[in-house]
Amino acid sequence: MKKVYTGKTKNVYELENGNYMLEFKDDVTGENGVFDPGANTVGLSIEGIGKSNLKMSVHFFEILKAASIKTHYVSADLENGTMEVLPAKVFGHGLEVICRMKATGSFIRRYGDYIEDGTPLDAYVETTFKNDAKGDPLVTEDGLIALGVMSAEQYDSMRALTKKIARVVADELSKHGMELWDIKFEFGYNGDEVILIDEIASGNMRVYKDGKIVDPMDMGKFLFA
Amino acid sequence: MKKVYTGKTKNVYELENGNYMLEFKDDVTGENGVFDPGANTVGLSIEGIGKSNLKMSVHFFEILKAASIKTHYVSADLENGTMEVLPAKVFGHGLEVICRMKATGSFIRRYGDYIEDGTPLDAYVETTFKNDAKGDPLVTEDGLIALGVMSAEQYDSMRALTKKIARVVADELSKHGMELWDIKFEFGYNGDEVILIDEIASGNMRVYKDGKIVDPMDMGKFLFA
Repeated sequence: MKKVYTGKTKNVYELENGNYMLEFKDDVTGENGVFDPGANTVGLSIEGIGKSNLKMSVHFFEILKAASIKTHYVSADLENGTMEVLPAKVFGHGLEVICRMKATGSFIRRYGDYIEDGTPLDAYVETTFKNDAKGDPLVTEDGLIALGVMSAEQYDSMRALTKKIARVVADELSKHGMELWDIKFEFGYNGDEVILIDEIASGNMRVYKDGKIVDPMDMGKFLFA
Repeated sequence: MKKVYTGKTKNVYELENGNYMLEFKDDVTGENGVFDPGANTVGLSIEGIGKSNLKMSVHFFEILKAASIKTHYVSADLENGTMEVLPAKVFGHGLEVICRMKATGSFIRRYGDYIEDGTPLDAYVETTFKNDAKGDPLVTEDGLIALGVMSAEQYDSMRALTKKIARVVADELSKHGMELWDIKFEFGYNGDEVILIDEIASGNMRVYKDGKIVDPMDMGKFLFA
């Protein structure tokens, strides 16, 4: 088993059957020890959060599977903290797709003179390049096409999938008294098909419960209560 | 005649017939005395550039009129450096629309790891909010709609007009041995109709001639040679 990538929160290994294996680590993104799903640095390490994220991802991937939404998820080993996934190419040097149900974070930093923090948004979708030095620059559909990162068809498919998946996640969270404010996805492609890759875990979303932000470590507790 | 706005490069007056009058000033944007059409500060003052910009704008507005592309332009007084324009509301607190024929400037600062400076682009269009403190943040079509700044129909109309007008300007410049790299427009609306407002002058575009960037003060010399 060959390690092909060392990420901020995951390591990736190549399997002999052509699939890949994700190893979930105990690191979450943030700054100065404070959790921030939009941050580019590992902010803190929390024992057990890797397996907790994997369990949560499997939970959501299974719900998506039941809803006939194909993802890269194949199977998981909760004991060892690993997930087997389909092969998929990432767009460009890595692209993040954000779906916002409520305006907050970088959306407010950019557009705060147009909208108040916490204003509902209709599953608004935006894409940013993974580039720590440039602060993850926003890129438009036209930009992605001009830069040769994806086709208009791939973008439209990715945008529609993002809205659909975010709504499935929001619905599931709301069953457990939680409200999804925003969520970050990664997509990959395999030929013409665009599929959700990476994870669906607390470190990639902002979730509120009873008017307070839910700590990523607490989310599983509420979800699996 | 009531002054209704004092801008970086223009003052705006209200006329009694319901139209407005733009007074072109001798200030151009830039930083530390160096011309930069993307800058947010007045970088330098050049005697006569106001009237030169007006003359150039009138030249381009007349070409657009001949091509049946409606703009806010009504008439001009070259002696006094003023232009009469139709009333139009600006989008939000001011929006800039950039059309890029070649990748350079902020496009490279954002996406330089995907594309080289000077690479041709197919009249790529992007929009930024006028907000000096936030460094003119990029905003997508979905963002403009989510923020209630414009409708999808208005965006599509503005994008198509931007490409059309940029190509008219590029064609005219190429007749005089110049090459348009990028250009910045402002649009306004009057009911359902979206029209080009502001100016079409050297301070709003990057133009090359014989492999060198054309100084805004020299452009008129080449254009009216």
